Amino acid sequence: MPHTPARFLVPLRWSDMDAYGHVNNVEFLRLLEDARVIAFREWFGEERTMLDSGVLVARHEIEYLAPLTFRHAPIAVDMWATKIGGAGFDVSYEVRDPDDVGSALYARAETTLVAYDFASASPRRLSREERAVLVAHEGEPVPFRWRRR
Amino acid sequence: MPHTPARFLVPLRWSDMDAYGHVNNVEFLRLLEDARVIAFREWFGEERTMLDSGVLVARHEIEYLAPLTFRHAPIAVDMWATKIGGAGFDVSYEVRDPDDVGSALYARAETTLVAYDFASASPRRLSREERAVLVAHEGEPVPFRWRRR
Amino acid sequence: MPHTPARFLVPLRWSDMDAYGHVNNVEFLRLLEDARVIAFREWFGEERTMLDSGVLVARHEIEYLAPLTFRHAPIAVDMWATKIGGAGFDVSYEVRDPDDVGSALYARAETTLVAYDFASASPRRLSREERAVLVAHEGEPVPFRWRRR
Amino acid sequence: MPHTPARFLVPLRWSDMDAYGHVNNVEFLRLLEDARVIAFREWFGEERTMLDSGVLVARHEIEYLAPLTFRHAPIAVDMWATKIGGAGFDVSYEVRDPDDVGSALYARAETTLVAYDFASASPRRLSREERAVLVAHEGEPVPFRWRRR
Repeated sequence: MPHTPARFLVPLRWSDMDAYGHVNNVEFLRLLEDARVIAFREWFGEERTMLDSGVLVARHEIEYLAPLTFRHAPIAVDMWATKIGGAGFDVSYEVRDPDDVGSALYARAETTLVAYDFASASPRRLSREERAVLVAHEGEPVPFRWRRR
Repeated sequence: MPHTPARFLVPLRWSDMDAYGHVNNVEFLRLLEDARVIAFREWFGEERTMLDSGVLVARHEIEYLAPLTFRHAPIAVDMWATKIGGAGFDVSYEVRDPDDVGSALYARAETTLVAYDFASASPRRLSREERAVLVAHEGEPVPFRWRRR
Repeated sequence: MPHTPARFLVPLRWSDMDAYGHVNNVEFLRLLEDARVIAFREWFGEERTMLDSGVLVARHEIEYLAPLTFRHAPIAVDMWATKIGGAGFDVSYEVRDPDDVGSALYARAETTLVAYDFASASPRRLSREERAVLVAHEGEPVPFRWRRR
Repeated sequence: MPHTPARFLVPLRWSDMDAYGHVNNVEFLRLLEDARVIAFREWFGEERTMLDSGVLVARHEIEYLAPLTFRHAPIAVDMWATKIGGAGFDVSYEVRDPDDVGSALYARAETTLVAYDFASASPRRLSREERAVLVAHEGEPVPFRWRRR
């Protein structure tokens, strides 16, 4: 992970909880989507977000470490880029309490994104500018505990 | 995979599509949840499903292979057990067209489930009966393509 | 209501339940959307559904009569057309147990739909064929109990 | 409506959009749920929200006035109490652009809430304190245009 990964504050919804009274495991992926929307706008600029105009989700991996219940304050998602290649990259995440709440770690996750040109409906290369932005947020892949069983 | 993995037919909803007009990548995990609900009821019995009374999701991994759009007919989810241990197991999935529609493969995925006793809120061992059911549906872990980059 | 309103069977999802362990009140509207998708395909034909190509939702009204919990079998949605006008119509619904389960009534609802031409992004008139289909399914508006307080 | 109805800022999610690229009509009800969660905490206090501990949704009515697309900034929900009775009350809403964005009105809606005691699973009377809070936020019911057709 970078020395200081970017942190994004993502609001929860009461409806993220399932019948067990916890934020549902599938909704965690929704929170990560929200974090990417916020992050890519900040990283790649106001006008176009990379999510809208240039990447496809190719893969997710996620580990759940502690149950999360609804709270009024947003959750913190630390996020950084890894495996930056010519035509795509990975994003690593840690879902945590914000600093003023505590230090609990709820989930670790990784998403593989492929650069895509929606206008022509075909894969594309990352631009020099996109690579520069990603390299500025580069870190080591988040370590998974369960995969290695 | 077993010689003939169990196949479960999971209905789509029109709302599973996102603004790109495809079933959203997060909603695929919802379809897998639906498949587990159907499967565990069939495998473990009418009265209690294992989902209700005895497992926690510890991990998901999913690869997206082709875009899926809404259709009125259900999608097929092939599902089998892997890595059956004392206190948990994995489920492998392939999301496919039903036989009368085609042979497209939309996603491969894997979920790690941990046996849990909701009444006492603590981990537990798989029972002998649960193990026997799972072994009857055992196969090789689904092969992921993207993980090994 | 018509002597025999059309009945559509709509699958539930385990995730339709909220932290109270009941199908969430908002998800009922999702079930009604699913019922319209099924109904309009049956009423207006295979190729195009009216939902895809020709109506906007202008209004919903819904009353909740009994709590609904997840079940593996679909729920029954009785549905008929009312207030058929030149440029739109209403749909009335009753959400019920299927006959082999019981006779509980969970919700009454009404949706106002406006005929729309998505290609030109403008309101339109109902066609003669559309009107004929709707008239064949016409009934009295579902009676609401709470509105008249 | 009160001279100055309470305004709550509700974050959107990219996934609130459906395949038409607009915030889905059902998701508007989710935004209203989020607004109630925020409002009731502010109105009734930090420790318990009325949503968690004391009201059931008995009815919704909503009219859609303009299409809404995803934006990074929250949407404004103006909200006030109406028809305050011994055992329940209504909430009226207007979903609008925040002041710094514009003055568009996207939806008008009304929810009927019934006071409920979840501990004993039975209806209850509004307390004197609850009534006082609601009266401080009382206004005229939001005027619906479509209902009177």
